[in-house]
Parts: sequence; C-alpha cells; structure tokens
Amino acid sequence: MSDSYTPTPADKFTFGLWTVGNPGRDPFGEPTRQPLSAPSIVERLAGLGAYGVNLHDNDLVPIDAAAAERDRLVREFKQALSDHGLVVPMATTNLFTDPAFKDGAFTSADARVRAYALHKTMLSMDLGHELGAQTYVFWGGREGTEVDAGGKLLDALSWFRDSLNFLAEYSRSQGYNYRFALEPKPNEPRGDIFLPTVGSALGFIATLDQPDLFGLNPEFAHETMAGLSFPHAVAQVIDAGKLFHIDLNDQKPGRFDQDLRFGAENLKTAFFLVKLLEDTGYDGPRHFDAHALRTEDEGGVWAFARGCMRTYLILREKARQWGEDAEIQAALAAYRVEDEELQGLTGKFSPENARALKRRSFDREMLGRRGPGLEQLDQLTVELLLGVRGGTSTASQPETEVTT
Amino acid sequence: MSDSYTPTPADKFTFGLWTVGNPGRDPFGEPTRQPLSAPSIVERLAGLGAYGVNLHDNDLVPIDAAAAERDRLVREFKQALSDHGLVVPMATTNLFTDPAFKDGAFTSADARVRAYALHKTMLSMDLGHELGAQTYVFWGGREGTEVDAGGKLLDALSWFRDSLNFLAEYSRSQGYNYRFALEPKPNEPRGDIFLPTVGSALGFIATLDQPDLFGLNPEFAHETMAGLSFPHAVAQVIDAGKLFHIDLNDQKPGRFDQDLRFGAENLKTAFFLVKLLEDTGYDGPRHFDAHALRTEDEGGVWAFARGCMRTYLILREKARQWGEDAEIQAALAAYRVEDEELQGLTGKFSPENARALKRRSFDREMLGRRGPGLEQLDQLTVELLLGVRGGTSTASQPETEVTT
Amino acid sequence: MSDSYTPTPADKFTFGLWTVGNPGRDPFGEPTRQPLSAPSIVERLAGLGAYGVNLHDNDLVPIDAAAAERDRLVREFKQALSDHGLVVPMATTNLFTDPAFKDGAFTSADARVRAYALHKTMLSMDLGHELGAQTYVFWGGREGTEVDAGGKLLDALSWFRDSLNFLAEYSRSQGYNYRFALEPKPNEPRGDIFLPTVGSALGFIATLDQPDLFGLNPEFAHETMAGLSFPHAVAQVIDAGKLFHIDLNDQKPGRFDQDLRFGAENLKTAFFLVKLLEDTGYDGPRHFDAHALRTEDEGGVWAFARGCMRTYLILREKARQWGEDAEIQAALAAYRVEDEELQGLTGKFSPENARALKRRSFDREMLGRRGPGLEQLDQLTVELLLGVRGGTSTASQPETEVTT
Amino acid sequence: MSDSYTPTPADKFTFGLWTVGNPGRDPFGEPTRQPLSAPSIVERLAGLGAYGVNLHDNDLVPIDAAAAERDRLVREFKQALSDHGLVVPMATTNLFTDPAFKDGAFTSADARVRAYALHKTMLSMDLGHELGAQTYVFWGGREGTEVDAGGKLLDALSWFRDSLNFLAEYSRSQGYNYRFALEPKPNEPRGDIFLPTVGSALGFIATLDQPDLFGLNPEFAHETMAGLSFPHAVAQVIDAGKLFHIDLNDQKPGRFDQDLRFGAENLKTAFFLVKLLEDTGYDGPRHFDAHALRTEDEGGVWAFARGCMRTYLILREKARQWGEDAEIQAALAAYRVEDEELQGLTGKFSPENARALKRRSFDREMLGRRGPGLEQLDQLTVELLLGVRGGTSTASQPETEVTT
Repeated sequence: MSDSYTPTPADKFTFGLWTVGNPGRDPFGEPTRQPLSAPSIVERLAGLGAYGVNLHDNDLVPIDAAAAERDRLVREFKQALSDHGLVVPMATTNLFTDPAFKDGAFTSADARVRAYALHKTMLSMDLGHELGAQTYVFWGGREGTEVDAGGKLLDALSWFRDSLNFLAEYSRSQGYNYRFALEPKPNEPRGDIFLPTVGSALGFIATLDQPDLFGLNPEFAHETMAGLSFPHAVAQVIDAGKLFHIDLNDQKPGRFDQDLRFGAENLKTAFFLVKLLEDTGYDGPRHFDAHALRTEDEGGVWAFARGCMRTYLILREKARQWGEDAEIQAALAAYRVEDEELQGLTGKFSPENARALKRRSFDREMLGRRGPGLEQLDQLTVELLLGVRGGTSTASQPETEVTT
Repeated sequence: MSDSYTPTPADKFTFGLWTVGNPGRDPFGEPTRQPLSAPSIVERLAGLGAYGVNLHDNDLVPIDAAAAERDRLVREFKQALSDHGLVVPMATTNLFTDPAFKDGAFTSADARVRAYALHKTMLSMDLGHELGAQTYVFWGGREGTEVDAGGKLLDALSWFRDSLNFLAEYSRSQGYNYRFALEPKPNEPRGDIFLPTVGSALGFIATLDQPDLFGLNPEFAHETMAGLSFPHAVAQVIDAGKLFHIDLNDQKPGRFDQDLRFGAENLKTAFFLVKLLEDTGYDGPRHFDAHALRTEDEGGVWAFARGCMRTYLILREKARQWGEDAEIQAALAAYRVEDEELQGLTGKFSPENARALKRRSFDREMLGRRGPGLEQLDQLTVELLLGVRGGTSTASQPETEVTT
Repeated sequence: MSDSYTPTPADKFTFGLWTVGNPGRDPFGEPTRQPLSAPSIVERLAGLGAYGVNLHDNDLVPIDAAAAERDRLVREFKQALSDHGLVVPMATTNLFTDPAFKDGAFTSADARVRAYALHKTMLSMDLGHELGAQTYVFWGGREGTEVDAGGKLLDALSWFRDSLNFLAEYSRSQGYNYRFALEPKPNEPRGDIFLPTVGSALGFIATLDQPDLFGLNPEFAHETMAGLSFPHAVAQVIDAGKLFHIDLNDQKPGRFDQDLRFGAENLKTAFFLVKLLEDTGYDGPRHFDAHALRTEDEGGVWAFARGCMRTYLILREKARQWGEDAEIQAALAAYRVEDEELQGLTGKFSPENARALKRRSFDREMLGRRGPGLEQLDQLTVELLLGVRGGTSTASQPETEVTT
Repeated sequence: MSDSYTPTPADKFTFGLWTVGNPGRDPFGEPTRQPLSAPSIVERLAGLGAYGVNLHDNDLVPIDAAAAERDRLVREFKQALSDHGLVVPMATTNLFTDPAFKDGAFTSADARVRAYALHKTMLSMDLGHELGAQTYVFWGGREGTEVDAGGKLLDALSWFRDSLNFLAEYSRSQGYNYRFALEPKPNEPRGDIFLPTVGSALGFIATLDQPDLFGLNPEFAHETMAGLSFPHAVAQVIDAGKLFHIDLNDQKPGRFDQDLRFGAENLKTAFFLVKLLEDTGYDGPRHFDAHALRTEDEGGVWAFARGCMRTYLILREKARQWGEDAEIQAALAAYRVEDEELQGLTGKFSPENARALKRRSFDREMLGRRGPGLEQLDQLTVELLLGVRGGTSTASQPETEVTT
C-alpha cells in the first residue's frame, strides 16, 4: 500500500546505523530496545524506500573487535548493501563514546589522545572508503570544555586545524578524495563545544590549508538548540558553496539534544528548509540524524523512519504548490521593489557611483510608510501548509494591501 | 467574500486596543504606524467578525487626561461599542509605561509608588466596570528585579499579596464582582519578573485571602519564552479550575517577547492548545494579545487580525477531524491500557489496598517492552495538520505496531 | 589541614549516593569511573565533614536484588552510617531508570505501570523510614510527554494527584510521618515534564487532599534550565512556607541538565541564594545534587565534593560581611522609601482607606525621577564578592547619588 | 579618592554616546532620564578616566539636521574631545531607528532602501573620519526576517556582500583606510538577524572581495543571548586574526538584549574573557556597549560607567594573580600531557608519519582512566575570584589527585 508520499531511492533519503539502531538509552534510563544488526537495518531501510545508510566506524565494528571479526562484519554488511541496493554515501568516526576521549579527541590536552584520535580516524577513513563513502563527516562532539581554566582555547583550535590538515593530506595520499563535512553543535555532551554553530565552522574552514576540501554538514537540531534559524544557517552555507551534506531532524530550542522525527516540532521551519533545498537544487543525500522516542519499540522505530521521509515528501509537494499559488506569487512580487537606476549605482563601486549616491536625496518617510504585506504572505503560507488552500480556490480574503 | 473560516461573534474572538493599535515601536526603532482611535478600532474589528475588545485604562484615556476629556473618550468609545455590537469582556491597568513604575508598582520599594498603583488600579477598575468588563487582569510586568541586592524578594510577595487582597475587597465593596486573572511572564521588561510562570501564579493564589476570586490569564508567548509547553501549562490551569481568560499569540522560545500572530510559529502546539480549549468546553473569550510586525502598515494590521482568527478556526476544524479519524482514534485507544483490578487498588488508599499492592508482583520486562505507538500517532497527527489526511482515505501506512 | 571554610556536620551538608557515586556516563559516552560502594561513600563523605547522605531505593539496593541481598546491603550501609556518624535525612524512589517507566510512572497511560510505581514507592518509603529519613522526595522525571497527541495531559494530573494522596495516607498509616517534597524540572529526560517549575509544584500542592504534608525540593539547575531565577523561586517557596528541602548545584540556562559543582557557573546568583537561606533561617539539609565532571577520576570526585561545601561556606561568610558593610547598608536603606500615612491606607482594605487613596493626588514625575541607586548597590556587591572590599576600607567611590 | 582600580586613559576604556546617553526607554515604558548632550558626556567620561567615546552618526547629528546644525554639533563635540583629551576610535551608522529601515537596510527587499543605506553610511563614514575614527563597525540589527516566506535569504547575503565590498572601496578611495568590524547578533529587534553569531561573521568575511579589511566586533551580550560561550567565540576570532574591536557588557542567556554593566551577571565568564584579552596582548579599545538600568537616574548612569571599568581592572588583577598562583600553575601543568614522539608524528602529515601512527597501538583504558584535575583547578579559580586565596596562603586543601 503506497501513496504519492511513499519514498523511493531517487529521493536520496539516508539514515545512520546509529539512528534507527538507537536502543533508547538516555542519561536517566537504560535501553528500551534490543540492538539491531547492521544487515537487518539495511534490509529494513531498503524496504521502506531509503537510498543509503551512513555509519561511524564503531556502529559496524566494535572498538575492540579483532581483525577477523572486523572483516566478517564488513563482509556481511557489504553483502546486505548489495542484496538490497543501498549505498553508503557518508562515513564518520566515533570519537566520543570511549572514555579515552572524555576531554576531547583532536583537542585533548593529552598529546597521546590527540595521536590516538588521528590513528582511529585514519582507520575509519579506510573503512569508509572500502564501503564507497565519498563524504567524510567530522562531528567534534567532545571537542570542548566545561572548565575554561584549563587554558586551551587557542591551542585547541590549532590542534583541531592541524588534525584536519593532516587528514585531508591523508585522504589525498590514499586516493580517497573525500569531501570533508564539519558538523557543528553548541553543547552536549560538553558544556561548550568548539565551533558551536554553522557560522563557526565556515569561519574555521577559511583558516585551513585546503579550504576547498572542507564544507559543512549542518544539523537542524544542533542549530535549533542555540535558538538559531536553521534555514538562515543553511542559506549561508549554500551562499558559501559549502553544503556538502545535511542532517535532518527536529528539536525544541534551548534544551537537550532531542533528535526528533523530521517535522515533529517545527513544521513551518521544516517547510522553508525543504523549499530552500529543493529551490537551490541540492542533490546530496537527505540524511535523517534522528531516532525514535525512547518510549517506542521496534514498530515505533520504523514508523519514525517512514514518518521522516513522508513528511519531507509532503513538504516538497507543498513547496511546489506554493510556487504555483497565484495569490502567493503576487504577494511575493509585491514585496520586492526594483529600481534599475539605483541598482545600477549600488551594484559595484566606482567614484562616480559613490558621488551620485551621496548627492541623491531619499524620501525617508515614503520608504518607511510602505507596507510590504508580510503578515498576509505569511498567513497564506500557513493556510497552504494546513492544506486549506489548493487548486484555484482562494480560501483567504485577498485583501493584500501592499502600498508602494 | 467569506469561507468556512470566517469568524463571527459567536466564536468569541477579542483583541486589545493595544494590539491592533500597536504603532510598531521597538527598543531600536521609532513607530512605523499612526495611532488608531479607539472607535475606529472597534468599527474595524466588528467588520472582521470579532466579539469584543479589551483595554488598559490608558489605551483609552491618557494618563494625564482631564476629567472632561476622559468622559468624552469613554462616551465615544461606548457609542462605538454600541454601534458595532462589540463588548468589553476584560479590563486591566497600565502599571508599566510611566516612569513612576520603573522599579515596580505593587512591589516598588517606594511606599508612595505602591499607594499610587492601588489608586490607579481602583480608578481603572471603575472604568472597566463602566464598560461592562467582568474579568480584571493583572499583568505585573514591572514587578521584578534586575538587582537582587535590593533585598526585597520576600517583601515584594507580601506587598503584591496585600494589594491583591485589597483590590478584591474593593471589587466586592463596589459591587463589581470581578473575576481576577493573573498573567505571568518570566522576564522583559524586567530582568526577572515575580510570578514568572503559570505555575507561580497558581501557587501564589493559594496564599491569597479569597483564592476563589483569582484565576489565570495564561499567555502563549510568555510561557514559551521560558521554553515551557503552553498546552501543558493551560492543562494545569484547567485542572485547578482557574482558566479565567486566555491570551493567544505566538513566540520563539528563549528570546524577546515577540507577540506574533497566532499560529505564526508553532503550528502543532497551537493545534494542541485549540484542541484542549475546545475539548474542555472553555467558553470565555479567545483573546489575541499580539500585534502586527513592525514592518507592516495598516493593511498588514488587519491581515494580521484576520489571520489570528482564521488560523484558530482552521485548527478547531482540524481538532474535529482528529476526533473523527478512525486510524487516529484506534492508535489513541491502543495507547491506553486499562486494568480494572489494579485501578481498583490504586484509586484510593486503604490499608488493604496498600497491602495488596505491596504484595503484588509486576512483570517489569513486559511493561518496558510494550510499544505505545506514539511515533505513529504523532505522524498521523502531523499529516492531518498538513491536510493530506481527510475523509475516509488513509494516506499513511497503517502499520501501527502496538504490542501489549 | 583546614581553614575557616572547612565544613563540619553542623553545616548540614548532604550528598546523594548517586551524586558522588555518579560513574560519568552521558548520552554519548560510556562510564569513565568505577562504581563506589555505599559504605565507602559514607566513609569518605564523613571524612570531608558532611552531615548526611540521601538515596534512591536502587542506589543502595539493585532493582532485582533478592531479599537476602537487600538485607545485607542495608545492614552494611547502616553500619557505615553508624561508624562514621552520618544520617540519612531524605529518601526517594527511582522511577526513571527501568524501561517500565519509559512513558511515566504515576502518569503512565498504562494502568499497570501506575500500580507498579505505587508498589515500588511504598517499598522505598519503608526503606527510607528504616534508615531514618524524614523527608521523602518526588522527582517526576519521567512524568511528561514528547507526543501530546496521546491526549493525557489532564488525566496525568489526576493520576499524579491520586498517587500522592495515596502515598500520604500510606505514610500516615505506617506512622512514618514523612514530609513530602516535590522536585520540579522543566524537561530532560522527557520533552516536557509535568509540573515543570517550582511554581507549578506549589500550584499543584493546593489541589492535594493534605496540602500541609507537601512542600518543595527546589533545585538550582532545574529552575535555571528554564532561564528562571532560582533565588526568586526559592523566595516564593519560603513565602508559601514550603521549603522542605533544597538541591544545590549549578547550570547554564537553556541547555541539558548539567548538575555542576555548586558555584561553578553563577557565582552571584549562588551568593544571593545562600544569603536568602541564611537570612531566613532555613535549618534543613543543604543537599548537593550534582556530580563531578565526566572528565574526572575519583580524585576529581572528592575535589568536587569539597568544592561544593567550601564555596557555600565562603558565600555564607560573604553574606555576613555584606550585612555589616556600612556603605552597602546605607545604599540598601536609601533604596527603600517608607511613608507611614500611605502604608496605613494601603495595608488593609476598608471603604475609608479606599476612598482616601482614590482622592489622593500623586506626583508621578517626582516618583519617576527618583534614583534608587541600584547600579551602585550592585557594584558594591560585586566588589565584596570579588574580595576587594573588606574590613573598614572603602575601595569603591562612595558617590551613591540616591535622590528622593 | 581613588584606589588601584581607578581607570586611566592608558587602560583604553571607551563608551558609546548611546550607552551612557541611553534615556531608559524600553518596549513597555517611556524614557526615565533626560538626554545628555555629547559634550557633557565627553566631559564626564574624561573625569572618570575613560580613553574615548564612540558614536553612530545620529547619536551626534539628528537624522533631519540641516547642514549648519550638523557643523555646529560636530564642532562643539570636537572641542569637547580636545578640551578633555578623549579620542573617537570607532564610528558606525544608525541603520535601525528610522522606519525606512524597518525591513532591513543593506538587505531590504526594496532597492531604494538599499541605496539609501549606502548613501547614509558613506556620509557617516565621512563624519567618522573627520572625528579620527579608525575602526568602522557594522551592526546589522535590522538585517533579518520574521517572515521567511519573503524568500530573500540568499539575495540578502548577496546584497549585504555587495554593500560591504562597495564601502570598502569607498573607504580606500577616500583615503580613510578604515578597518571594518562586523558585529553579529542572533535576534532582536528582528526575529532572526542575518550573520547571527561571531562564527557567521567570520564565515561571511571569507566571501568578501577584500577579507583583510574586515574583522569582528564581538559583543558579550549578543553571543550570550544565544547561550554561546563568549570567551570561546573571542578565542576563535583571535585565532583567525580578526579581533578588531570588542563590546563588553553582560547578559542572561536566552532572553531580550539586556546590555548589563560589565560583570553584573557572569563574573567567572568575564574573568576568563579579561584573561584572554590580556594574555593575548589585545591592545584595542575596551568598549562598554551597555547602559544603566532603566530604574536609575543620572547618578546611577555614572555609577554604572565607573562599575564597568572597575570590574575590568579588578579582573585584570585577578588574572595576574592567577598566573602567579603556584598551586593553580601546578594544576595547570599537570592538566597537559606532552609526548614528543607522538607530537612529532601528528604535527604535519607525511606518508611515513601516517603509517607510523596507524601501526601504533594505544592504551585506551589508561587514557580514559587519567584524571585531569579540572574540578580542583576550577575550584581554585573560584576561590581566587572570591578573594579567599592570596599571597602565599593556600586556603584550599592541595589534594590535587592528578594521575597519568
């Protein structure tokens, strides 16, 4: 049984092994679900219409696995991928679970931990390449502090940079040619995490040896934790040409990392995000870095996974409708005021343009009086989202009083 | 031109004079709109289908108006109400604009300010009664501190209580018989406002001389500023029998007081709120304590007002559909597990019940394994909200794997 | 080696077994420390000068312990308490770790879970009484929702109330005569927890059968998570006569539950809290519900425990100095304006007082012009906290320009 | 009367005309203080030991001033600067007060507003240069949205970039040679402001034509509003060589823009910030972008200004003591673990280093067991801040159990 919101691999939906495989443990409670094997996850995701699956090294291979066990696990996983037609577009390293990384990995104050983090990441990059991954993600979840008296703020940024430069060279030297995607987060598990926002990561990339190899893996929940607008953040990433990957989920601002089902909380924001991705032709994976609520059993896990994908597809269809809604498009057109002459003067500096602009007099009062019609445009959008606008009907009164 | 979401007075929608009359001033900018006269607001709101209009004393009568001017303004306002069939269900006092109240009104450290606040409130209660108001709201926006070194935390609560007790007696002695509704807010304009949440106000009422006269006027934006769930807060108010009035608007958590159009931000939360109000038979005014964005001109103000009411009505219709959606109702029924025998033991204490319960053995593993189906129920709700469920169709796959 | 900030049992400092025993697990990482046995914790805390130790049932007795093991563990624990002179002032139930409670305990939608929660709590109350506890805490950490579509908001409050009423009767019938203390928290581990703030709990108590038996156990971190002022919250609890217990720790607003060392983050707020407790004669335990950072080994745990107590004692001494600082006391006196006549009129309602107040004219401009001197008072407080005011010296310029 | 915390111009403390001149208006209240003339502010600040004063164009010259009035105001201001020995290190443009800018200045959807913003900024840059300013700040307070349906997220970044590129050329062509400093803010007055964090601005600079001309003016309150660590943010700015200016004040996270007196709220964070600035040799102005509480009269304004500077100097002295505290320095040394061989391998990529690192085996358990002593180091810092450590005494027990 399917409908027009049933996903197919062409939609490029991916999940992490750690997402649908999340056992429902939290800081105050023990796991509520049994672990799922990687091959069984692959099979089930394929059945739901997913495109691929991502992983940390230790999602597949336990940190203390012997070589033979590693090889067996990888072999079985590859077989499952092949059997079910799923790909592994992205890989990453677990640098946060083991106590060795409790005070950071690349930014630990202990040089031995920093070396071990490089060691572990190279091996994980080998694994990712073996599985066909082309994007390699860095989520520096333990790179941070609670106690700034440790005095390592500046050193940490240097150590982090050295590590990323090292690993970029390693990727090239091995012929892996990964694209690296930094994933920022403001806090949790550390009090304050280094490179806390999408912007911080963009700023940091500019200081790397090979900035072109590095981009972003922005996550909805992480930016939202800091109360920042995720569509705004993603727009800046796109503007900078750095949208290498994306993590979709949901979250309430100002609290612990919830990793909710996509669209579970901020429907309108999710709509603007989907619209932005579709309008700008983003063609990478839509990765759901989320997990079913701890209350759920395995049935709830797959309801969660289906729900993430369905909501994306529903919002994609809404974005299409929005683009074809005559009243909305009229309000949108009225919102923008073009002025060819002035745009000629402001587009590019020349002494003449500057002089002309300085001499020009502007009618402040008129500019301040103008009504841009944003309340009406927003209300039309809400009504479209709620499904009470459609086809050619105009459910809302068309009294869009835009004045110029 | 109207549709099924066009409001009528029977829907009991009200606005404050200060809401549609908001001139678009903010901490960094001058007003962008002209003031509107009270009679013109009444006329326009009536045309949009509103039920009533609320006010602070100084929304209608300037703080320094002479008696004759006051009488003229009141007369003209009453005439407009009568002409257009609007009522004034609620009145309140402006105890925040004038510099005299800069460090609080009822909780000022200056005894003269406290006395002036009582004086002003009694006069304002007289005005409200004259206009027919039956509910009197206390928003203690200036009752708070930035500097706790002033040492008045405990005194302030005493002074506040004394004032409320005084005014309740005044209401009775004058035959006004107001119901008093406290409106909590966590901060802004003060660093920390006394009685910051719905709960704080409920707790405070229990310490008053006549707790039955006092209830709540919870506001969506205020509770949301502190990141608290507004439906949860309103449920506690209803549970306590204290929902005397309600302020509807919208807000992003963890930031300045936005007073956005109802439904502009948190659609899903707004849905659960409307559903709660309708399900529990709340029959008081639905008051929109919000204002058009500062970007807007007067056209935007009325688009804003229409939008608040339309979105409420759309969500009310969604709540009805939700109640009739068979798949949703089945998921809801499966979520609850009844057990007559155990409910008999736990309902009311008796030594026998306690003994029986203590002796009983429980199957922890089974209880922990059970899947409540919440992800699926939530996804069905999201799809209903987005308008892709309807009539008898079942857009979502019915794989609700609830196990008991 | 000790100094004037070395604690003694007379200071009434307590820790939970779960606090110093916290093994350093978090949502992204495995434990970094070995478990400590309850007797060894008792011995070590006694050595540091603590007064007592608190516990959940399962801190001492594993949930699946057989009767004999339970008895042995309790016996050894009591022996350690006796050997080292520590008391158990407070006990509570673990209703959050086991998967059975994943969707709530007293507020689960499953009647069997609600019954099991009562069962477990009665047994835990028996244990607490056996250990001498006089205060019984309810932290309803799993009582809440992520999915409000479950529709249980009002039922949950009823079930919670029924449970508390039942357990209050149980306490009386057994002769335990506990004082019950509710501990609110806004979120985590649940998306939204019922009774999220100190105020909510105060409001809820007013709806119980025996409100006098119930009070609060406010926690610094919990109120701070919602960005609310903890001293303000505690002041309301004291005003209501409901401060039955207190949980001291620290936290940054708007993020995951950190449970930081007391005074680690908000020094000034911690000072006002200590001052409030000492000024109002609170004589119950000062319980540190916090834990050492996950980065720390056992040495760090004891540094953490010592630090909590030392900072409290330092701030207590600062509060004493503040009360004796002549300049500060002068600024404080100037802040308050008394007016005997007006206070006579406003203190208690009478028709005559109301009439006199209404007729009175007030000089608004003068009241608004007055400078309360709060910036100066606050700066003096900061300098006292930083230790640059002391004895008779006046480090700050005394230009306190307070005008009346 | 002065002490060792009395500022002198060598300390490089500056204030904005708009800070000490703030009249105490807020969204809910009218001004509580009279405006102060620019020359009188200069005189008073000089008397308090300040180094300079900063301004927006309209702080000095009203937006509608005629040329003659402008010239008179500038002349009198320059005279005051000269008379009292103050400089103007920084200037900026008011692009937020006038209704013309209600939907943005450089990012308005109205091409005429964008042109007017350029016009006004060039004139303001002329004024700044005339007054000797070398740093020019851009705070894009109105550059943002509430309604993302307007669809301008990507255009807005382009328009903003074009404007900054234009103005950089203008500065060069006029021989002004300004250093430009972007000042990020997450929200207020707009719902979401473009370039919301320090990181966003760093990322954006990398996309400008002349990135070397652009740096940051980070503000304590703005980063704190989003719950981000200001010392972490400033460290990243320093790491990127972009600390062109700094705005000092204070703020509670997750609420409206408070602009509190420096050190009024987060004493420990303020300490780490001062330490960072002093340790890294920042030699620009320490600008207090804050204002006295609205409760205060003019006396309170100057108490506020003195307090900002005194607290900075006290914390600077604390930072010096911290550097000389033997126990703290020992704890700090123990926190770091060097390993020459491993640091040789990780410092720079080579195939040999990579190979050696990959082959290396690491003792995870040992690395995870190590106690870094951060609780103790933090507690020592707190005690130093509270002034109970000093000279050679060791108030705290030296049981720093750091294990390697």
